[in-house]
Amino acid sequence: MGAKIESIQEGSVTSAKGFLAGSTFAGLKTREEGTQDLGILLSEHPATLAATFSTNRILSPSVTLSKRRAERGTARGVVANSGCANCSVGSQGLTDAEEMASLAGNQVGVGADEMLVCSTGMIGVELPMGLIRKSIVDIKPTPDGGHGFARALMTTDSRPKETAISADIDGRTITFGGAAKGVGMIHPNMATMLCFIATDANVEPMFLRTALTAAVGASFNMIDIDGDQSTNDTVLVFANGAAGGPVIEGGSASAQGFQEALTHISIHLAKELVRDGEGAERLIEVVVDRALSLADARMAAREIASSLLVKAMVHGRDPNWGRIIMALGKSGVELDESKLDIFINDIHIVHDGVAIPYFADAVISGMSNPDVKFRVTLNIGDASATAWGCDLTEDYVIFNSAYST
Amino acid sequence: MGAKIESIQEGSVTSAKGFLAGSTFAGLKTREEGTQDLGILLSEHPATLAATFSTNRILSPSVTLSKRRAERGTARGVVANSGCANCSVGSQGLTDAEEMASLAGNQVGVGADEMLVCSTGMIGVELPMGLIRKSIVDIKPTPDGGHGFARALMTTDSRPKETAISADIDGRTITFGGAAKGVGMIHPNMATMLCFIATDANVEPMFLRTALTAAVGASFNMIDIDGDQSTNDTVLVFANGAAGGPVIEGGSASAQGFQEALTHISIHLAKELVRDGEGAERLIEVVVDRALSLADARMAAREIASSLLVKAMVHGRDPNWGRIIMALGKSGVELDESKLDIFINDIHIVHDGVAIPYFADAVISGMSNPDVKFRVTLNIGDASATAWGCDLTEDYVIFNSAYST
Repeated sequence: MGAKIESIQEGSVTSAKGFLAGSTFAGLKTREEGTQDLGILLSEHPATLAATFSTNRILSPSVTLSKRRAERGTARGVVANSGCANCSVGSQGLTDAEEMASLAGNQVGVGADEMLVCSTGMIGVELPMGLIRKSIVDIKPTPDGGHGFARALMTTDSRPKETAISADIDGRTITFGGAAKGVGMIHPNMATMLCFIATDANVEPMFLRTALTAAVGASFNMIDIDGDQSTNDTVLVFANGAAGGPVIEGGSASAQGFQEALTHISIHLAKELVRDGEGAERLIEVVVDRALSLADARMAAREIASSLLVKAMVHGRDPNWGRIIMALGKSGVELDESKLDIFINDIHIVHDGVAIPYFADAVISGMSNPDVKFRVTLNIGDASATAWGCDLTEDYVIFNSAYST
Repeated sequence: MGAKIESIQEGSVTSAKGFLAGSTFAGLKTREEGTQDLGILLSEHPATLAATFSTNRILSPSVTLSKRRAERGTARGVVANSGCANCSVGSQGLTDAEEMASLAGNQVGVGADEMLVCSTGMIGVELPMGLIRKSIVDIKPTPDGGHGFARALMTTDSRPKETAISADIDGRTITFGGAAKGVGMIHPNMATMLCFIATDANVEPMFLRTALTAAVGASFNMIDIDGDQSTNDTVLVFANGAAGGPVIEGGSASAQGFQEALTHISIHLAKELVRDGEGAERLIEVVVDRALSLADARMAAREIASSLLVKAMVHGRDPNWGRIIMALGKSGVELDESKLDIFINDIHIVHDGVAIPYFADAVISGMSNPDVKFRVTLNIGDASATAWGCDLTEDYVIFNSAYST
């Protein structure tokens, strides 16, 4: 078993066969060297599509439109803009989202209803459609356009997030490319994040949905930057079948390999989002194991990775494990305090719920690692989960104190 | 109607008749000018007691003991220490809590089981009982001891929180005194906070519980500093009846006046906790009105007051109302986006879910007020609620990056 996953050098969302992308600068953001703010990702042939969206009660009309179009389970591509979230702008929002899809469809020669729309940026201001109409004609999707597309998604991201992997699935090489943006408002259950995964696998539509749900559950829903959640979150996976081969259906050996690869690239991109969290300097990995249920393990791991006091203590290189205990207890999961074990970077510091005389210098030294790992073993079951967060820094506050005005 | 509430100058937890308090420095904290870390609050006669405690799954044995003793609905007093939370220390924790109650009972001449125990401070270290045994004999409760008791609760609080009010209830003057500590780990559903309210009202025990639940629901459960929640939270209200008069029973006119006064002092102390939040510079008041239900109004108000992005925007004097929309949507309450109104410091900035051309200079100027007020009107019902939070500052991060080591 195992899908033999390999990373592709300089990979992008167009690394898989039959995907093209293009981007331009329309003027939705301040122009700097290499700034892009409008992009199109396109499959050369109709692709099977699965999607997950924000659970916020207030959604950008771009999300509303994409949600509706995603229900068919097939699409040709997506047009994405950064700078403006197209949210809280009344009925104009849906009109603009529809026009954007239609402009993009015209530009690449596919039906408007085969294009999805994603927007990210400021809430409460209308999309400057004049700029979009004028600039979209400059977008000519090519197989090399992935890097530009990833740049077109960036808001306060300090760098584009993109990757590609190849996986040997049932003797066939399948490629997965991905691009994402994240930064602020990131919290379990998704938040200001967009992620696009494009694979040349040939996948049965229902299984693609199931696989995406599982992949998102183990990746984007397990990361936290600041506990907030946006109105625009979207994860799309396009599978265009260009790699050939029989359809991958649920329950098969190839399905298992596909799931493994999809989860792998999702976790990779999710961790990249956290690493580039606003002001973040270090990654926090929280493993909760031997929990009573997967739901409990996930809940506890997320609660710890989301705690401001835990984040601040990582920033300060301070192994103040009482904060881990506090966050664990707050999560409300089943636990027996007298059975708890806690490890910081593999050093055992709490056993049976009580501190053991650990070597403090080694623990403090490990707290300076670029990746700080906490493991909490509940010792009451068999379930385990991993969550990722970033440290809370002065820069997060400085950054978020001065954003719109 | 209305309980004619008046503030008492220099009031403290011993302002009501028949309450005494004393405190000392036992050495549980670093000594500075005026530092106290161990205190006793005592009623001269048995008092009716109601209590609420942390909902964290991991509790300090001090809480466990007090919870048990609070079930009887009557007590003489409480011994409280700061510096050490007496949490995550195995079975020694309960032994120490019991000894502390017993030492306190001996010192003031009441049964050990008539004393409750509260601890706040570091998690994971045992109470230094040697210091407590040695110092507790210095505590001689007096009617003037309230101010010292409030100081004995402080951890990272920059100042003691205490107040007293008198209320004319059914023609009789009833006094309420209160002392509290808060600061970090404050979040809806209580968190590292202790609050003691002592009143000379004569109250029927079941009604006292009901009244405390209502008061806490509108005050301590509506404040947020950093979203975290402690293992030690406790709110106790002692009613010793020393003001005389008939028993106040639920449903009566005097019950209404009592509720009003208890909620009033609870909100006052809760706001004091927020104002003194770690690093906090300004208070955020969030009113959500015309909601479908009280639960919805409370949930939405808390979610907005808890949002890091909202807190950071207040710190930056930035009226970026999209973050209010984001937090409101994230709360999951019933709403109709096209009916939303938002006001910042009484300036109407969003109507029917869309920005109106407000006078930005006035809004930005108001964002510098010491109290910043957001009102979100859902226009779908009659329920309203208020929550309080504080701004997120660089100092919060600096402070919490270097606490234990």
